[in-house]
Amino acid sequence: MNKGHFFSFEGIDGSGKSTQASLLANSLRNRGLHVVLTKEPGGTALGKELRRLLLEEHPKPLPLAELLLFHADRAQHIEEVITPALTADHIVICDRYIDSTYAYQGGGRGHDTDTISQLNYIAANGVMPYRTYLLDVPLLEGFRRSVRRGDTLTHFDLESHTFHNAVRTCFLSRAAHPDHLRRIRTIDGCGPLEDIATLILHDALAIIGNSPWEE
Amino acid sequence: MNKGHFFSFEGIDGSGKSTQASLLANSLRNRGLHVVLTKEPGGTALGKELRRLLLEEHPKPLPLAELLLFHADRAQHIEEVITPALTADHIVICDRYIDSTYAYQGGGRGHDTDTISQLNYIAANGVMPYRTYLLDVPLLEGFRRSVRRGDTLTHFDLESHTFHNAVRTCFLSRAAHPDHLRRIRTIDGCGPLEDIATLILHDALAIIGNSPWEE
Repeated sequence: MNKGHFFSFEGIDGSGKSTQASLLANSLRNRGLHVVLTKEPGGTALGKELRRLLLEEHPKPLPLAELLLFHADRAQHIEEVITPALTADHIVICDRYIDSTYAYQGGGRGHDTDTISQLNYIAANGVMPYRTYLLDVPLLEGFRRSVRRGDTLTHFDLESHTFHNAVRTCFLSRAAHPDHLRRIRTIDGCGPLEDIATLILHDALAIIGNSPWEE
Repeated sequence: MNKGHFFSFEGIDGSGKSTQASLLANSLRNRGLHVVLTKEPGGTALGKELRRLLLEEHPKPLPLAELLLFHADRAQHIEEVITPALTADHIVICDRYIDSTYAYQGGGRGHDTDTISQLNYIAANGVMPYRTYLLDVPLLEGFRRSVRRGDTLTHFDLESHTFHNAVRTCFLSRAAHPDHLRRIRTIDGCGPLEDIATLILHDALAIIGNSPWEE
């Protein structure tokens, strides 16, 4: 399994992560590479049902059930989509992955890091991206973009400013932590879309061209 | 929270556990007691959706996602139903609980006991029945009864004889383990329905009458 071929995109809603994930996928496909562009939650048929329960359905799951549902989604996603793609030497680009769990369920909901780590150990079993692009924008900018494109409001959109601030802070502090410094690249999401796309593409091509890094 | 008021019923399908759970609930209600009769999976609105995904929907969840979904259902169930009822000194009777996870996902699917214990620690946080009635019947008898009453076939019904045999064996060996000897009462589910109901009612009344046992 080629870990050098696994990329994730992280950030708050409206940070531009989904757009950039899609642009990277297209650029790599234009170079003849086989890319699987996927997302969490909702990267499988089961995951689509869970995404609905997690984001849209009422009543919303209580915090602990939510945490466990995200990991059920992840376990299914890894086994059904990510691992088979990496084993076949395809490139996997995932819109949200483990860092979102630490940011939203840890930073936002207040679950302790040890519990999240235990669950990730069970669900992900060491399947980690080689590179994570964290698109960072101020909360107000993210919110403005989400509103402008008319996104359906999810349970998370209805959370407080304090919640979203804790999520963004958690993303940034994870990126600055020695354990993740090599993996997570923080990118100012307010810059021009094309400049960000070029920066990410060059970084990704350098990684794909190089021998894969094994943890 | 009065742990002496929490009862669970366990066993393979067709063992009579749901019938006996219901009979006990009725007998206690007839004595003026406040009883919450509930089940796993599916004891909450979220749980009903998860039950559908776990038992009926296709494609069925992969084993690890299944394990995590059962725990999401449990976390929601405990916080929304079981804990509030026990806190209000009501009697909770639950059709399937933690022992079913060890039997089906451990014995049947082969997940290791440590992983299940870790997840139960996270999801259940020590909320355990004071008494568990394990209704035991031979596989063929359980199967016959399920067919006779025309149950909708679930993913589990379609599993092999080996699977179901491992489930039953796991139930029985848990009941015989020193850690659970005080809690689990194994009952021959082939005996007359009324005799079993009387036996369970007397045991339950003795528990409810006594001071609760704290772990």
